[in-house]
Amino acid sequence: MSQATATAHRRPSGRDAKRAARASRAAASVPFITRKIPYYQVLDKEGLQTIERNADTIMEEIGIDFREEPDALVLFRQAGCDVQGERVRFPRGLARAIVQRSAPAEFTQHARNPARSVRIGGKNTVFAPAYGSPFVRSLDEGRRYGRIEDFRNFVKLAYMATSLHHSGGTICEPVDLPVNKRHFDMVYSHIKYSDKPFMGSVTHPQRARDTVEMAKLVFGNDFIDAETGRPKTAVISLINANSPLTFDATMLGAAREYALANQATIITPFILAGAMSPVTVAGTCAVTLAEALAGMAYVQLVNPGAPVVLGSFASSLSMQSGAPTFGTPEPALVLYTMAALARRLGVPFRSGGSLCASKIADAQAAFESANTLLPTCLAGVNFVLHVAGWLEGGLAMGYEKFVMDADQAGMMHTLLAGIDLSENGQALDAVREVGPGKHFLGCAHTQANFESAFYRSPLADNNSFEQWEADGALDMAARANKVWKHQLAEYVAPPLDPAVDEALQDYMNRRKASFPDSNV
Amino acid sequence: MSQATATAHRRPSGRDAKRAARASRAAASVPFITRKIPYYQVLDKEGLQTIERNADTIMEEIGIDFREEPDALVLFRQAGCDVQGERVRFPRGLARAIVQRSAPAEFTQHARNPARSVRIGGKNTVFAPAYGSPFVRSLDEGRRYGRIEDFRNFVKLAYMATSLHHSGGTICEPVDLPVNKRHFDMVYSHIKYSDKPFMGSVTHPQRARDTVEMAKLVFGNDFIDAETGRPKTAVISLINANSPLTFDATMLGAAREYALANQATIITPFILAGAMSPVTVAGTCAVTLAEALAGMAYVQLVNPGAPVVLGSFASSLSMQSGAPTFGTPEPALVLYTMAALARRLGVPFRSGGSLCASKIADAQAAFESANTLLPTCLAGVNFVLHVAGWLEGGLAMGYEKFVMDADQAGMMHTLLAGIDLSENGQALDAVREVGPGKHFLGCAHTQANFESAFYRSPLADNNSFEQWEADGALDMAARANKVWKHQLAEYVAPPLDPAVDEALQDYMNRRKASFPDSNV
Repeated sequence: MSQATATAHRRPSGRDAKRAARASRAAASVPFITRKIPYYQVLDKEGLQTIERNADTIMEEIGIDFREEPDALVLFRQAGCDVQGERVRFPRGLARAIVQRSAPAEFTQHARNPARSVRIGGKNTVFAPAYGSPFVRSLDEGRRYGRIEDFRNFVKLAYMATSLHHSGGTICEPVDLPVNKRHFDMVYSHIKYSDKPFMGSVTHPQRARDTVEMAKLVFGNDFIDAETGRPKTAVISLINANSPLTFDATMLGAAREYALANQATIITPFILAGAMSPVTVAGTCAVTLAEALAGMAYVQLVNPGAPVVLGSFASSLSMQSGAPTFGTPEPALVLYTMAALARRLGVPFRSGGSLCASKIADAQAAFESANTLLPTCLAGVNFVLHVAGWLEGGLAMGYEKFVMDADQAGMMHTLLAGIDLSENGQALDAVREVGPGKHFLGCAHTQANFESAFYRSPLADNNSFEQWEADGALDMAARANKVWKHQLAEYVAPPLDPAVDEALQDYMNRRKASFPDSNV
Repeated sequence: MSQATATAHRRPSGRDAKRAARASRAAASVPFITRKIPYYQVLDKEGLQTIERNADTIMEEIGIDFREEPDALVLFRQAGCDVQGERVRFPRGLARAIVQRSAPAEFTQHARNPARSVRIGGKNTVFAPAYGSPFVRSLDEGRRYGRIEDFRNFVKLAYMATSLHHSGGTICEPVDLPVNKRHFDMVYSHIKYSDKPFMGSVTHPQRARDTVEMAKLVFGNDFIDAETGRPKTAVISLINANSPLTFDATMLGAAREYALANQATIITPFILAGAMSPVTVAGTCAVTLAEALAGMAYVQLVNPGAPVVLGSFASSLSMQSGAPTFGTPEPALVLYTMAALARRLGVPFRSGGSLCASKIADAQAAFESANTLLPTCLAGVNFVLHVAGWLEGGLAMGYEKFVMDADQAGMMHTLLAGIDLSENGQALDAVREVGPGKHFLGCAHTQANFESAFYRSPLADNNSFEQWEADGALDMAARANKVWKHQLAEYVAPPLDPAVDEALQDYMNRRKASFPDSNV
């Protein structure tokens, strides 16, 4: 399976392994995707300007609340905003100007393995696993709370997935660890069990500092960029707005810590349309843009030039039950529009993923995930969180869903590579060789392109009905169950300098011992 | 369920029915879709010209075989082609010129209920059910051969689906009827149990004539267009090429009958890339275009001005098993490209659908179907066959899959309607009313837009995990099982003039009695 294997794959055996090896040859393992197909955009320039104008109106007339963070208010006042209490109102165009003055259009997030470093922004797309679920689900155990063992498992699966470029962050909540010390084990697991780039803790400013300290231990003398004299960006972190139009002290504090250390932040309005924004696409886009601009401006005021990403998480609310829905057309329209707005602003964009409301890895999960991931790729999202594993509106991380999503992410590599118009791609000689009424199966061109011809899914069953029945009449989830177990059994950790490992463990142990456990 | 109800819905009762009624209000029932969003195109003008040039080279150098149809060879020779045996070689640009001289850019296919007539071409999209499967599948009975009762059931389900605009054709094979007389019952069922437009028989020229005769009985004096003096287009039919680069007498004979009667044909190269075309996207597009141009030119030579549609059915072959695969990236790239080529040619385009290789309505089916239907809509397909029910590479028609696909088709209506930029759509007043930190649930704008705010899926479960468990922890297929049964139970036939009904039955009975049953 293209997701099953990595460089670390050793001694494959049996049928699954053979399939894995074949697929592995076919799937190009790249550190990130650079798209070769055009963006899809729904609104034209005039339409996008309407949204921008409305975001300006919201920021100017209504304003954004920055709660319990007096330093932020000082920064905004100095920058020319009208600050009343905790309400910050921005003169038209000011936030945009602040962002455009110093925020990089694209940047590198460094991995401890330099071959895995990712370029975020521009025509690049980076896939990361799902984030933040308290529960995990598998066919074997059903749904239960996540544990650190699950966390490590998903880090390993993401490491082995050639279609995922990033280790992610809170890949699931390790509920068996105290709330105020979990971040140590999460960050350590990302570093220990993977060499892909990862995300940092945002639940407290001190935890953000811990994340940066641990990154420093990994990169050592290499942490400071010799050319710029600034710290290298080794961590990217998720800063959600308290939508609508509000940021709280926890998130602002974490954003501040990361910005000061030149680490990347993703400023993401978290919008369930109908609750945190109006029930319309255009209204939701205007609120999202206003919040993101305000948050990104804050980051640039804290440390001009610190990498920052415009984020958008939009779901539409079920007007019957009040539950969030996924994979419906409206969030896709928001996604296409926000991506275009981010390009106009000139900053990297984060959105999308393989989102779904389904509790299990059934057809609903797949419809909804595909209807999110494909727009994600066509729109031109640069950093895609929640690519693999997401179930139940983000409440559960699914083992089977993870490998199914990784397969879909593999397909997106092929899609984004576009159409080969080389002579070999045009294949006129093949048509000349075969001619009317014959078949191309054995022709020279087919033989030459056999291996790389088409994307090969490790999970799709394309066999005859009879063969499928003989194989046990399994559905895709049942096949996925075998695949993730096989992958975990075959996992081999990437090498880590024992001195670094010791330093990380030493830091964790000292810090953990320095304050009592707490679950608040 | 938006697909569950239609004008004929009577006395809804119980929970399902209430959901149905709610969804019905939300879903706009339109005879066809007129898109308000841009097309997505992968290749630029230069790339498309490369494909066109290669198609011309194929037609000029290699040529197309027209088998056992001497009349076709005469027509092509008269038009200026080089005819050697059954091989027809086209001077560069000739087929294009023939098509562009007389083929309509768009046309109306008339339904017996004028409110259901569809406009095929331009910015319009028409959704039709799957076509041609010998088997049917349901959760209750598993997989078995299709019967005329199944055929009628699917005609009824398509009639009740507000997201489907067309009754389709060989919606499943009624294997319990003799091969040489099935077409009577199929055409009659489309007319009797639905008032949406339908497709005709193509398995023999005489069966095409029967189809046209039955359409004449339905339209009566109204069959001839008073303005043009030509027959109205009341039937559209699927003419597949015998790819690569070959047309056979059966298909050419049916195409000829329909063209002479001014009925529409869809000329569709049926390509499993790697077998009937090279293993590349660009090569597959060139072969598809060459075949389609040749077939469409034939139709225009038979009867200039007869409606004709450029069709493309492309799947990529599994290079391991030789089985067709669906929902992979390569066919989507073909789809985007062929749609753009059809627009450049100036003819309506048929492709896509909800294709999958999965045997059951599981996650594989959904991933693959979504990865076909969304590109179908973004590319700008005008006539979409196989929108609902398709399983197992077209070998089986699924009851549960049918209503699941119809739900997805409903979402596409919302997507293609684009983004409302009216003042109400921009919703600035809602943001002014609510402000930071509050929610939009009860605000005036939300109240006013409550009913139509978001697409409502009748099949997705967006409830809490606990509620879903209390409801039986059903997957989407199990929910779909309830829905199609409910729909069939609630079905009421559209009115049909008893005199027309009698005339149709009389025609069928006379014709059936005039020759012996045969299963070849």
